[in-house]
Amino acid sequence: MNTRSDCIALDAQDPLRELRNLFTLPEGVNYLDGNSLGVLPRATAARVAQVVQQEWGEGLIRSWNTAGWMAQPQRVGNKIARLIGAGEGEVVAADSTSINLYKVLAAALRIAQADAPNRKVIVSERSNFPTDLYIAQSLAAQHGCTLELISADEVAPRLARGDVAVLMLTQVNYRSGRMFDMAAITAQAHAAGTLTVWDLAHSAGAVPVDLRGAKADFAIGCGYKYLNGGPGAPAFVWVHPRHTERFWQPLSGWIGHANPFSFDTAYQPAAGIGRYLCGTPAVIAMAALECGVDTLLAAEPLGGMAALRAKSLALTTLFIAQVRERLADHPLTLASPEDPALRGSQVSLACPEGGYAVMQALIARGVIGDFRAGDGSTEPDLLRFGFTPLYTQFVDVYDAVTALDDVLTSGEWREARFNQKAAVT
Amino acid sequence: MNTRSDCIALDAQDPLRELRNLFTLPEGVNYLDGNSLGVLPRATAARVAQVVQQEWGEGLIRSWNTAGWMAQPQRVGNKIARLIGAGEGEVVAADSTSINLYKVLAAALRIAQADAPNRKVIVSERSNFPTDLYIAQSLAAQHGCTLELISADEVAPRLARGDVAVLMLTQVNYRSGRMFDMAAITAQAHAAGTLTVWDLAHSAGAVPVDLRGAKADFAIGCGYKYLNGGPGAPAFVWVHPRHTERFWQPLSGWIGHANPFSFDTAYQPAAGIGRYLCGTPAVIAMAALECGVDTLLAAEPLGGMAALRAKSLALTTLFIAQVRERLADHPLTLASPEDPALRGSQVSLACPEGGYAVMQALIARGVIGDFRAGDGSTEPDLLRFGFTPLYTQFVDVYDAVTALDDVLTSGEWREARFNQKAAVT
Repeated sequence: MNTRSDCIALDAQDPLRELRNLFTLPEGVNYLDGNSLGVLPRATAARVAQVVQQEWGEGLIRSWNTAGWMAQPQRVGNKIARLIGAGEGEVVAADSTSINLYKVLAAALRIAQADAPNRKVIVSERSNFPTDLYIAQSLAAQHGCTLELISADEVAPRLARGDVAVLMLTQVNYRSGRMFDMAAITAQAHAAGTLTVWDLAHSAGAVPVDLRGAKADFAIGCGYKYLNGGPGAPAFVWVHPRHTERFWQPLSGWIGHANPFSFDTAYQPAAGIGRYLCGTPAVIAMAALECGVDTLLAAEPLGGMAALRAKSLALTTLFIAQVRERLADHPLTLASPEDPALRGSQVSLACPEGGYAVMQALIARGVIGDFRAGDGSTEPDLLRFGFTPLYTQFVDVYDAVTALDDVLTSGEWREARFNQKAAVT
Repeated sequence: MNTRSDCIALDAQDPLRELRNLFTLPEGVNYLDGNSLGVLPRATAARVAQVVQQEWGEGLIRSWNTAGWMAQPQRVGNKIARLIGAGEGEVVAADSTSINLYKVLAAALRIAQADAPNRKVIVSERSNFPTDLYIAQSLAAQHGCTLELISADEVAPRLARGDVAVLMLTQVNYRSGRMFDMAAITAQAHAAGTLTVWDLAHSAGAVPVDLRGAKADFAIGCGYKYLNGGPGAPAFVWVHPRHTERFWQPLSGWIGHANPFSFDTAYQPAAGIGRYLCGTPAVIAMAALECGVDTLLAAEPLGGMAALRAKSLALTTLFIAQVRERLADHPLTLASPEDPALRGSQVSLACPEGGYAVMQALIARGVIGDFRAGDGSTEPDLLRFGFTPLYTQFVDVYDAVTALDDVLTSGEWREARFNQKAAVT
């Protein structure tokens, strides 16, 4: 069993320990919620100030040319591509995750309609993040399709029935942290004639992703979680080159036009992934996102995503062991996969009584995680802890378990102040 | 004829002159392009830094509650509502202009399909801003409709044929600055059984807009032009309450759900305009937009949009008069309406030879306007000057005409350096 000193020693030996210095971490906070909102990179404030004061304030409209604003979506996209096994020129940063999902799912359905018009089923996981299901619900209605929700274990047999047009999955589940084997499932899907749409919200920057290696079809992901792009950061979109130019996506705005400044009356989609852009780039937000992505690229000389993954698994494995050893007397059960190969970069603990209040009490002690309802539940009974190898330390894991022990042992979570729900949970 | 001293005197008497102090204007620049990208408000840099460093950096995930992030779209929307004759709770700020147009045009088509299924025509102006036409083209194809492009003068007779589902117009044309009478055209449309979608990109914050008074159906607009929200700022969307809850819009992301944090598997749209939200709010960009909108609200004690309109017309009228009086020897013709009632807050001059190079030479002299191809032309033959009454001075108008005279008289625009086209125009 690891003591606190052991954990401090692990941090001292950690080859990635210097990366923590790339971030501004508030005093007295043990932040285990980078899977919801990544922390502030040190470079971001100055870069955003430069964009606001010099590029916008001084350069004004000239900065579209002189400051490279128009190239932002591709430039940031190319950086993200390096984290997800995509090629140069295959990714753009733009809009929100939900909107990008709409683009790729619509494109996937257009391709399916052309190639296999009798397939009318979109399949997803019942416990997928709701916005994915809502967007799929909208597109299913538009395309005369059915959205079928199943459990993770039912995916393979469901595909085998051979009638699924599109399989839409979030690679790492937002509640349990369970991770799908993208390559294996994509192969099953393709064998069954099904296209795949992958949401990388909890995997880009968290685990190694190899979209090209997996022969995936479409992917989108979030900029404000593991990419540290800031609250509501632009998201990203990737399409395998074999599909990119087959159809338009429906959000055919001028920035996705082959030549936006020709001001043609007819839409002519840009070559390649550029056609997945829509409106004018969100310049300020995109600058913050770029700083966030740069924090992950800073790990490249240290082994990149493989090294981050090794540390992530060391952190989550330590957390699970610590909970088992030190919190055995408390009514907590592991709600994340035991098998490291199936685990993302988070660990969820089922806490059937008082999950919400326990997390509030933890936050009051400076340990910030969050909570979600478990699969099939409407109660906030899952305590969720995200471990971000760029800045989470082994001693943070130890201290979080200590704080959780204190909260549960003292019973302080039963106090009224921890049971008042905030507007946003 | 006004001399430069007369113009300085006009500025000294201008009741809105103090509003210029709300902005950071670069030295040596006479900025007449606020219709493309508004200038930087003085408050923005500090506010954005606060959001980045305190709210994000220190508050982290807690700021969704403690800093009011989740309420941003409605809070900023309510401020924009005051500029466009909309009610409290009727506007949200979100996404881009193109994406918001997609939402409202899709909703309008759903209503039209329900109420008048035989109507299959979307009508717009041929010289509308292209992104509007591209989005309409996409939705027309989805809904089995035709997009018909006509000239401004053909709108009334075209409506009278009684087969138009939706009329989609930009109130102030981006090239000529010609302004439609929203109330009159909406009345004609309704008399013909047609719904109206108004793009306020060049009118919100530029001219008084009265959506409720005009009984308009749907409207969207841009955050980075006259609202001074910064490059690629979030846009806004308004729907008349009689339509808001009739249908979903197709971009049914989780932030438009009735209860996003219930994490339901089925979409249930929020009551009211909230259902026009989609993904997580772009917090940093939204903070900059709010500072921009606040610069317009600062005019409220001085007469608000009516006072701004009076100054805008005084500026554009002065510019036209100065061009006529001082530039009569040059081959320039007015490409904007003579009648002030039909004029937005910009003036375009047709410059058949060398429009692009003339503007580059002007910019080199510190007078920043831009250029566009005139209606029916593919050449950049229109010099476009935006007059933003919040910060444009009468002496700026005078000086711009002097610079234009110098450029044309000297022939310096023929120099090679002014004829090399930049990537982004």
